[in-house]
Amino acid sequence: MNELKPYVIGIDMGGTNTVFGIVDARGVVLTSDSIKTRKHSNINDYIDELYNGVTRLIDSVDAKDQILGIGIGAPNANYYTGMIEDGVNLPWPTPVPLQQLLEDKFGVPVAITNDANAAAIGEMTYGAARGLKDFIMITLGTGVGSGIVINGQVVYGADGFAGELGHVIVKRHNGRQCGCGRSGCLETYCSATGVARTAREFLEARPNEESLLREIPIDEITSKDVYDAAMNGDKIAKDVFDFTGTILGEALADFTAFSAPQAFILFGGLAKSGDLLLKPLKEAMEKNMLSIWKGKVKVLLSELKEADAAVLGASALGWEAPKR
Amino acid sequence: MNELKPYVIGIDMGGTNTVFGIVDARGVVLTSDSIKTRKHSNINDYIDELYNGVTRLIDSVDAKDQILGIGIGAPNANYYTGMIEDGVNLPWPTPVPLQQLLEDKFGVPVAITNDANAAAIGEMTYGAARGLKDFIMITLGTGVGSGIVINGQVVYGADGFAGELGHVIVKRHNGRQCGCGRSGCLETYCSATGVARTAREFLEARPNEESLLREIPIDEITSKDVYDAAMNGDKIAKDVFDFTGTILGEALADFTAFSAPQAFILFGGLAKSGDLLLKPLKEAMEKNMLSIWKGKVKVLLSELKEADAAVLGASALGWEAPKR
Repeated sequence: MNELKPYVIGIDMGGTNTVFGIVDARGVVLTSDSIKTRKHSNINDYIDELYNGVTRLIDSVDAKDQILGIGIGAPNANYYTGMIEDGVNLPWPTPVPLQQLLEDKFGVPVAITNDANAAAIGEMTYGAARGLKDFIMITLGTGVGSGIVINGQVVYGADGFAGELGHVIVKRHNGRQCGCGRSGCLETYCSATGVARTAREFLEARPNEESLLREIPIDEITSKDVYDAAMNGDKIAKDVFDFTGTILGEALADFTAFSAPQAFILFGGLAKSGDLLLKPLKEAMEKNMLSIWKGKVKVLLSELKEADAAVLGASALGWEAPKR
Repeated sequence: MNELKPYVIGIDMGGTNTVFGIVDARGVVLTSDSIKTRKHSNINDYIDELYNGVTRLIDSVDAKDQILGIGIGAPNANYYTGMIEDGVNLPWPTPVPLQQLLEDKFGVPVAITNDANAAAIGEMTYGAARGLKDFIMITLGTGVGSGIVINGQVVYGADGFAGELGHVIVKRHNGRQCGCGRSGCLETYCSATGVARTAREFLEARPNEESLLREIPIDEITSKDVYDAAMNGDKIAKDVFDFTGTILGEALADFTAFSAPQAFILFGGLAKSGDLLLKPLKEAMEKNMLSIWKGKVKVLLSELKEADAAVLGASALGWEAPKR
């Protein structure tokens, strides 16, 4: 932390909203706001609106000239190149030189990375991973993302894209079709959409079994519906969580063989399912763990406040931005 | 390299032999020798014989007081603790405080790690990985080992045991029994013993098909026999390599999602099978690779001379020993 510049800006660019806030060294979000990511078809108009929004926040807390850096989590953002690379659903042509555009506009150091890496850095700086040097962040949202920390450093790999654990194949044959074009990826099973997909499969495979989920049109079932049904004792819904947790636990045991982390940290909507997910997950993880790691790897839940998490995660990168 | 101490000692402790040599900064093995690992049931007697052997080598090249450090590759050796940990088949009670015993005896800095990590460091220092910062060494021997390098550093993990990629599960259900007590591990398929096992399975499953391998008692078939038969055009033997290469290629595609390496480096007897193994391996790897990495990750063969490789790999760690 710099005494003269005690704040950083965290920006989380999502597919729908861009949330931003001013954060201090203790992880307090002093103030935050958001804009629509898709409002402008020209990237410069988007940057202008973002600049105006951030400047208003800075003025509101009298923090002019006190911003050390800006950290951004954005889809397919590459820490090395500062670019949003191809393959994302955003209204601007990719690659987008986001880091450069923002440094030019704001005049302070900027660092960008993808949302899962930002979450990992946020957890290490302010959350459940404080004091951990080796851990793996698993984000369970619409997809499954990951941020890998080894010896206190986020793993970016040779090209900046390391840590795509949601695309490790967990079912080699006849696996579910994935948005990446392959099949059997972890995220087709263990994301929120994967849970809904499992529920539909189970409902169709067990047509004579009653379930609260049958009250919902089958194509509209969400992971939240499955959670609510399971909490109300629904057998099929509980089986969906057993199935999901088991696959994730098996995968975490394999991931352990790679980097021998102290802990996995789960983040995202599904991570809030409590023992419905954690119990089968931990059982499968321990059962499938190589003996040297049995009982030694923790599974922790994110400690970042839901509303602030994205901004906090991104902001944590802001402290590093001047060192890039 | 230290001008006054231009040499390191590399020691490779195997289950049968312990090979050791004096190595210079260019990776030239000036002289080497070996002793039987299992000759002494008392670890101190083993250390004494090793000390005498190494001292003879040092005297033979007039290198007294010119040894910067000692590097050792040994089974289940932990870089952090300096111990050979439990779970190995050696004639002494484990854990063995190998690093301390050797530092006390030799009076120079000592570093130890397992053989796959030693191979990775050797390849980075003297071999195919010179100039690479992100690569994964895969050793294909009796088992499958791995040494992972990220950003120029070997990944030891929280406990010193990271990089057990031979024990990632590649067949979740009805997989082959592994020596680790679980089933379906990569090494049950892609090690030299895995290749022999596959040959036996194929021969039994295809009883009416001729094969050169049928001239050998089925329990005595080795991976070398399978290689020789395949080179002579034997269909079943070639299918064994296709099967092996495909499983390894699929696994390497998954490993890429973890650390996005520039290259995989293959080492060990099977790595010398040439295109018999590499062709199906590369095909399967590319086919199963997430699109962002298709065509971008190299598969290289070790460049360390077979006879010197183990000593060289261990010796490379010797340069680091004084910095521990």
